Amino acid sequence: MGTTQLESVPEPKYWHLRTVLSEALDSEFAVGQVLPNERDLAARFGVARATLRQALEQLELEGRLQRRRGVGTTVAPPRVGVAVGSAELGWPGAPGDAWQAEESDRATAPAAVAELLGIAKDEPVHIVRRTRVTGGQPVAADLVHIPASSVPDLTAIDAPAGPARARAVLRELRRTEFEGQDRSVELGSARADDARALDRLPGAPVLVVTTRYFGAGGTAAVSLATYRADTCRLTFGADGVEIHHTPERQAS
Amino acid sequence: MGTTQLESVPEPKYWHLRTVLSEALDSEFAVGQVLPNERDLAARFGVARATLRQALEQLELEGRLQRRRGVGTTVAPPRVGVAVGSAELGWPGAPGDAWQAEESDRATAPAAVAELLGIAKDEPVHIVRRTRVTGGQPVAADLVHIPASSVPDLTAIDAPAGPARARAVLRELRRTEFEGQDRSVELGSARADDARALDRLPGAPVLVVTTRYFGAGGTAAVSLATYRADTCRLTFGADGVEIHHTPERQAS
Repeated sequence: MGTTQLESVPEPKYWHLRTVLSEALDSEFAVGQVLPNERDLAARFGVARATLRQALEQLELEGRLQRRRGVGTTVAPPRVGVAVGSAELGWPGAPGDAWQAEESDRATAPAAVAELLGIAKDEPVHIVRRTRVTGGQPVAADLVHIPASSVPDLTAIDAPAGPARARAVLRELRRTEFEGQDRSVELGSARADDARALDRLPGAPVLVVTTRYFGAGGTAAVSLATYRADTCRLTFGADGVEIHHTPERQAS
Repeated sequence: MGTTQLESVPEPKYWHLRTVLSEALDSEFAVGQVLPNERDLAARFGVARATLRQALEQLELEGRLQRRRGVGTTVAPPRVGVAVGSAELGWPGAPGDAWQAEESDRATAPAAVAELLGIAKDEPVHIVRRTRVTGGQPVAADLVHIPASSVPDLTAIDAPAGPARARAVLRELRRTEFEGQDRSVELGSARADDARALDRLPGAPVLVVTTRYFGAGGTAAVSLATYRADTCRLTFGADGVEIHHTPERQAS
């Protein structure tokens, strides 16, 4: 493997290096393969270690590389498409739901969630923690925030703790007529508890999906779901078309 | 402003600092306010500069802080909700579209896009560059990839260069019957040309929205839109409910 000198270009050096590295990944490396160490890579491309690290960080952000302690830097497999959208239309916990209910507590919602729910900042809500597993790997952690007014008969139920309690809260929520939902997606960093559930370090980049569930003339529940940004691509079907159904469409 | 010593906690130091800083932003700072310099902040919280920087990076990722050269670190305004979804249902460039067509070229599509379009890797496509502006600020840059077979009569048109050419290509595309679309969202880093359009440095974190447009029994076009991840929150209406319509729903 020879030395590849970077030409002088007006864009930042690490950015040009990222492009060169990206092409090398396509042509010279297979998924799962371990990259040479930083010293060798920096020497090959004739750049400083700091420049190399910036370029590697870019490629990690784009999901091209994975960096793991004790393993080093490997070529990442393509991101997994995770359906978020019409596949999940309905109350959380409805049949066919991709989520596993783990536990439920009563606690104060974050200020932003309380505002979305239209409740007072200090009003406790039921918080149902859920996880989503795809291909044996945890891809998302979710907190569903449900005001007491959305599950008025819950206290009458002799609900135990843990998953059974979590399922009982969601079952009560589903007694309300479902009136629709909307979602937003934004960049975030994993909170400590989410990071544990997702097998990441706190602060790892995540995609935060906020879903508002409407029922009984208002916002009946708000879910904050945290998806791994390194391994996931969120797919949204629109107009009844799901991303997984389309190979047939291309057959013509 | 006194010295706030961090308690010893099992989670990483920078993560705990991020939480403490986040609370300080809520209680002590206003949007747009410039934070004290890194040396003063590190001294106040009794941490090393490296730890402080990691915590500031987290808060930047979450959209709480903005760091700009020559200004320093400021408290960010809330992210802007940008509608992606049913609001844009239809061909790119349809009436009411939020995008501005800028120019059009013929070039080879990236390998991943060629695969989505079901065309050969070296088959040239029309690439229409568009930008999206919200509140006077560029929030997204888009490349719509259109195979020649989707716009068969385009050569018959005496289309000039620049925006007029871009609009002509999209107008031709709209002559095909629209059969639906789907989308995916993932984390990426801004390419040099997108970074310029979005007033960011190359490599800045972006949300990449890939939209497939279906028509004539196949994938007629693929758009790769790059949204600023620091200032944008992507909103998706589902079930006919748009995020902007809901204050009325909460009135009951």
